[in-house]
Amino acid sequence: MITRSANQSLLVVGSVAFDDIDGPYGKQEDLLGGSASFFATAASYYTKNVAITAVVGDDFPDEHLDTLSDSGVDVSGIERASGKTFRWAGKYADDLATRETLDTQLGVFADFRPKLHDGHRQADLVCLGNIDPVLQLDVLEQCGAPKLVAADTMNFWIEGKRTELTRTLERVDTLLLNDEEARLLAEEHNLVRAARKILRMGPHSVVIKRGDAGALLVYGGGIFAAPAMPLEDVRDPTGAGDSFAGGFMGYLAYAGNTEPETIRTAMITGSVMASFSVEQFSLAGLHGLTQKMIQERFDAFADLTRFETLTL
Amino acid sequence: MITRSANQSLLVVGSVAFDDIDGPYGKQEDLLGGSASFFATAASYYTKNVAITAVVGDDFPDEHLDTLSDSGVDVSGIERASGKTFRWAGKYADDLATRETLDTQLGVFADFRPKLHDGHRQADLVCLGNIDPVLQLDVLEQCGAPKLVAADTMNFWIEGKRTELTRTLERVDTLLLNDEEARLLAEEHNLVRAARKILRMGPHSVVIKRGDAGALLVYGGGIFAAPAMPLEDVRDPTGAGDSFAGGFMGYLAYAGNTEPETIRTAMITGSVMASFSVEQFSLAGLHGLTQKMIQERFDAFADLTRFETLTL
Repeated sequence: MITRSANQSLLVVGSVAFDDIDGPYGKQEDLLGGSASFFATAASYYTKNVAITAVVGDDFPDEHLDTLSDSGVDVSGIERASGKTFRWAGKYADDLATRETLDTQLGVFADFRPKLHDGHRQADLVCLGNIDPVLQLDVLEQCGAPKLVAADTMNFWIEGKRTELTRTLERVDTLLLNDEEARLLAEEHNLVRAARKILRMGPHSVVIKRGDAGALLVYGGGIFAAPAMPLEDVRDPTGAGDSFAGGFMGYLAYAGNTEPETIRTAMITGSVMASFSVEQFSLAGLHGLTQKMIQERFDAFADLTRFETLTL
Repeated sequence: MITRSANQSLLVVGSVAFDDIDGPYGKQEDLLGGSASFFATAASYYTKNVAITAVVGDDFPDEHLDTLSDSGVDVSGIERASGKTFRWAGKYADDLATRETLDTQLGVFADFRPKLHDGHRQADLVCLGNIDPVLQLDVLEQCGAPKLVAADTMNFWIEGKRTELTRTLERVDTLLLNDEEARLLAEEHNLVRAARKILRMGPHSVVIKRGDAGALLVYGGGIFAAPAMPLEDVRDPTGAGDSFAGGFMGYLAYAGNTEPETIRTAMITGSVMASFSVEQFSLAGLHGLTQKMIQERFDAFADLTRFETLTL
């Protein structure tokens, strides 16, 4: 458990990638993407001590690294390998609600074996992005004694490496995943029952991301439902979940504790960052935010959900 | 606008029907169903002055009418016609998230021409269930000057009788519909933009029911998001939307005003009744509730959504 102390360090291990996005707002290529990019940029508004461990190819432009650095992200753990950078190409339907993966080129990411810098091994909070659970466990072996370990996963690992994933989950405090993945992992359709089953696998809290239906936090003490902000202008939902995770973990690093009340607030700061993220392509929606803008969006969430007590 | 005064009268015009439900909890036939049945039963906990206008066939057992009367519902406006009662047969998938309509027999409902009793014409609040918009307008012509008119509709009328529906909507204060219907009516995928477009058609508030993603209220002053209660045991989602509408309108009748704060609370009392409804077949989940049970479920919604202010 994290104890209160300012500016805790946060490490995310994941992907830094190129995205080629097609959809109702046109085609955009070679965008800076990847789970770690969204995560760290979103988190950077809450803690100035966020580092990425990832790999890119020799085709990756320095400008993209500068973009991350400019947000205050420590990019020293982004290794450069010979070959191509991970590239994802997707096409969104006109309603932006469904998408189709057109192409996935793993490139150098296929051989990614995260090796933490000495300076990153003592991170207070660690987020294990969506990579092979064997590698996730290996990252934890390299770490000192993080106060909070969060992890993401996906169908591919749940179906293909369940045993290894189970082993990793024993050491994860907070698992973030979407509803489909939660159902698949727990082999249970009902989300509450699925979440409770996942809690018995190790994590003390589960965050179920449900896209425009918001996110559910299930923990020993209860359930919290964060709505998604109903937005009039959504341009690119790519990275929404990772922006959520970054805002969530960034706030925990900022707050310096993982009390239930803090985690509830973190669910909203996560939702805030996701809502900014989807308004623009790539990381543009996460750039140039001010404390005032974040506070106002947070207050909009409070207004969205507040209601008075019932007195019958 | 409703002005504060206790125990306002509420009239619902809709269907009283038989449901044949199949799903993971087995097959149940000849269940008491229909939008007005769920609506009025849910509303009966908030106002003792709720009446149904509907039609049933000569095959409709008195016990079902007694069931409604026992909840305090005025059934004097349920006309008996020669022929068969409206019957809906549906099968839910194992996950209870999707359902298939196996059969719809309109029976006497096909010729339903609602004729209000004198005692019902002066109802303070009127809910126009999902019937032909021409009939909805006809009901309004028979009414005095209701303080609030709510209406439901569906794809069938939106696609088949758009002009007539538009005419009805000009006289509707609150439109309740699901997300698909809202998109179809507004010809706009984005829910916020769709809702704003619907507001320009007449209603001063739109309630978009989103199943287990909760419900959105969009009105001139803003947006309110009510979550659905994450439940471990869902047996029969039939009537959830109508139970929501009943809890919503019942509370407005109870509160005697339609101030934004009151409507927000009504969104939660609606969600409370929907959450009780889906836990059992037919109306069973809505029967035998105590004020304490309703208050506790309401408080559970408050706990589900509460979070502390952000201080960056």
